[in-house]
Amino acid sequence: MQDKKIPYKIYLEENEMPKQWYNVRADMKNKPAPLLNPGTLQPMTAEELSGVFCDELVKQEMNNTDRYIDIPEEILDFYKMYRPSPLVRAYCLEKKLGTPAKIYYKFEGNNTSGSHKLNSAIAQAYYAKKQGLKGVTTETGAGQWGTALSMACSYFDLDCKVYMVKVSYEQKPFRREVMRTYGANVTPSPSMTTEVGKKILAEHPGTTGSLGCAISEAVEDAVTHEGYRYVLGSVLSQVLLHQSIIGEETMAALKKYNIEPDIIIGCAGGGSNLGGLISPFMGEKLRGEKDYRIIAVEPASCPSLTRGKYVYDFCDTGKVCPLAKMYTLGSGFIPSPNHAGGLRYHGMSSILSQLYDDGYMEAISVEQTEVFKAAEMFARVEGILPAPESSHAIKAAIDEALKCKETGEEKTIVFGLTGTGYFDLVAYEKFHNGEMSDYIPTDADLQVGFDGIPKFPGNEI
Amino acid sequence: MQDKKIPYKIYLEENEMPKQWYNVRADMKNKPAPLLNPGTLQPMTAEELSGVFCDELVKQEMNNTDRYIDIPEEILDFYKMYRPSPLVRAYCLEKKLGTPAKIYYKFEGNNTSGSHKLNSAIAQAYYAKKQGLKGVTTETGAGQWGTALSMACSYFDLDCKVYMVKVSYEQKPFRREVMRTYGANVTPSPSMTTEVGKKILAEHPGTTGSLGCAISEAVEDAVTHEGYRYVLGSVLSQVLLHQSIIGEETMAALKKYNIEPDIIIGCAGGGSNLGGLISPFMGEKLRGEKDYRIIAVEPASCPSLTRGKYVYDFCDTGKVCPLAKMYTLGSGFIPSPNHAGGLRYHGMSSILSQLYDDGYMEAISVEQTEVFKAAEMFARVEGILPAPESSHAIKAAIDEALKCKETGEEKTIVFGLTGTGYFDLVAYEKFHNGEMSDYIPTDADLQVGFDGIPKFPGNEI
Repeated sequence: MQDKKIPYKIYLEENEMPKQWYNVRADMKNKPAPLLNPGTLQPMTAEELSGVFCDELVKQEMNNTDRYIDIPEEILDFYKMYRPSPLVRAYCLEKKLGTPAKIYYKFEGNNTSGSHKLNSAIAQAYYAKKQGLKGVTTETGAGQWGTALSMACSYFDLDCKVYMVKVSYEQKPFRREVMRTYGANVTPSPSMTTEVGKKILAEHPGTTGSLGCAISEAVEDAVTHEGYRYVLGSVLSQVLLHQSIIGEETMAALKKYNIEPDIIIGCAGGGSNLGGLISPFMGEKLRGEKDYRIIAVEPASCPSLTRGKYVYDFCDTGKVCPLAKMYTLGSGFIPSPNHAGGLRYHGMSSILSQLYDDGYMEAISVEQTEVFKAAEMFARVEGILPAPESSHAIKAAIDEALKCKETGEEKTIVFGLTGTGYFDLVAYEKFHNGEMSDYIPTDADLQVGFDGIPKFPGNEI
Repeated sequence: MQDKKIPYKIYLEENEMPKQWYNVRADMKNKPAPLLNPGTLQPMTAEELSGVFCDELVKQEMNNTDRYIDIPEEILDFYKMYRPSPLVRAYCLEKKLGTPAKIYYKFEGNNTSGSHKLNSAIAQAYYAKKQGLKGVTTETGAGQWGTALSMACSYFDLDCKVYMVKVSYEQKPFRREVMRTYGANVTPSPSMTTEVGKKILAEHPGTTGSLGCAISEAVEDAVTHEGYRYVLGSVLSQVLLHQSIIGEETMAALKKYNIEPDIIIGCAGGGSNLGGLISPFMGEKLRGEKDYRIIAVEPASCPSLTRGKYVYDFCDTGKVCPLAKMYTLGSGFIPSPNHAGGLRYHGMSSILSQLYDDGYMEAISVEQTEVFKAAEMFARVEGILPAPESSHAIKAAIDEALKCKETGEEKTIVFGLTGTGYFDLVAYEKFHNGEMSDYIPTDADLQVGFDGIPKFPGNEI
């Protein structure tokens, strides 16, 4: 079964690990649109952004030109504790499917946060510490980002306040204990501890929360407390920059064994994993050196790329954040409560939105029962219990591999296995008990979200 | 901080992975005492054992002479999916402690079973499949072994029935869902589905169960159903054989970087991890080639090595299994319900018991609140959330490193980090809330267990 030239798992040596992040914006002809001040509708200045973000991260957020940015030594040291992550050849999945395709996955789940989120968390915590801050605030959905940030803050001895989407807080009590082990303070969102939380609860008393709400609360908490800044685990360009370590390691591991991928697949919520995984490959594509099919996979219940509008919108439900140009379902969009796991953000990274709009990548949506079927099959043959988010990519990779089975093509498929599902067993239990349902929003459902998108000249939907 | 010659994590290449298990019994002058038939008090014959175990595993159980046993290709393939495990240099822990000691840990938690248990599970499932069996039965305490066996059975398409110690079943509902994902059937033990379960429940209506009870039920289930055999995740000599992969990889990784360990530390329940980790090092010690301090760490609430008797005893509470000569607290011993996590078996592997009795290793016991303190400190600096079981070894390693701090000695300490604590968050929550207590059995408490040890000539306690 095994191609003896290719091991099951490709690990880079410590000295082969990337020492710079790759900034895909440097290679984009059409740069992602700048963040706008919602009051003036003018691009946010560095000074305006520095009230919310650390100074160094503001620079990274606005840097559309430097192709490579050095990773500070302290961050490299932390990366060495849990990276490089393995690039795994899915020999057993290939055999199970009977496909001539060669399937690889970059597995980011082998750390206690359970996902790739730690790659950016440690960078953001480092810059906050370097600036002499007391602590940071953030939101978390499935809990992976909150756990990652808790770990990073613990490492650098920073205070960490996490607003956790209420539905996840209730479904995942153990996530709270992990964050507590690392010393974080966790609040279910929407909460009564912020003005914006109170307002959202007054308007939607029964809401199970959304990432958009939690972002609003975390931002308010940061800007109203001396010595705190807000940090975000996805969507932002700085996050994609940090996550480029995933793609760089993947590319280095493939090159080490002279493997040429044909298709690269990532699950897409706010874009952190997808953007990180594809960055260096997209760079080659943008520079005309290589051609790859790049596929974003999103939940049918939260379909920002496949059914959203490409306009300026608020990043948060409370409308306290800058406007970002992105594929969006409207900042008021909240996925149906039957939606399990993460990938519940209403918008998509500005970088990925621009690349998608320019035709450099494809996007598809999948329904969650199909996703869990793929997850269970994967677990049984490859051994790893995948996170529901990651399983969107598994589902798409399986479908592509089955197409190869029909055509006989020996394509090489690479997908991002962003994390493990150890804290998602309530969802797995629902699936096993036949209690999991699908939900595809109607056009009318989506229109409610679109109606909340700000209207100004040039921002017609 | 980093010694640039030694990476944070040492991974063997796939072609450097061991291809044989090492059988420490071959190097023991005093062989472990044979299993006895409880009726005749004569050594169990292969024929008698084959009613309970697979034929090939019976051979391994009785093999005191072959130093190396080839690992079948199918098992090597499975090992390649999640092995080699990393040998990690605990640079951050060393820094936190301010010790001149060099600390390494062999981390076995990077697989979905969350521990080293998969190393033997896949071997036992393979031999069961090869023999044409329908399925296997087993017990599980903390749930790691049950999960591992579920994964292994799923891979080889075998039926898997798991009797789970009731206290763990109730404290760890998510473990059940993981096993279910892999298709296993899980029953809380003691149960009403077996005769021995009914008997134990009649005698101890409020019991929270023990490994000893669960073993009795699983054995009864196997011997009363055609095409089933019983498999066990610890204690047996065959299990230590399979787990020798841990020690062999550790030794190979150390040799790759010319590292000479002084102290080797493992947590000890039934002995699977400890026996596996130390085997090849013990072999060098037995052959007089090297000298190492080897330390077994057990819970103060279940102190088989440090306070048990070295006699023949039943392996299970229901007294349906053969007698094994081992350090034991008596097969009726059940740890106090406030004892969290695994390491709750009343006895200790016959191999380790003999080695301990012969003075080749030391044993200490530690209290659980101290263990959780060590676990939390470790998590915060090394990033990994450890299993409570593994944290016994962490505690001992920290103590040895602090002794080095006092003396200034630059000793090299290697310990086994057997698994992750993702499914132990109820225990962590108790610890965080100050609700965790310690329990050290009194001599009178222990006497109750000792009174149940079988009495026959030569077996006086």
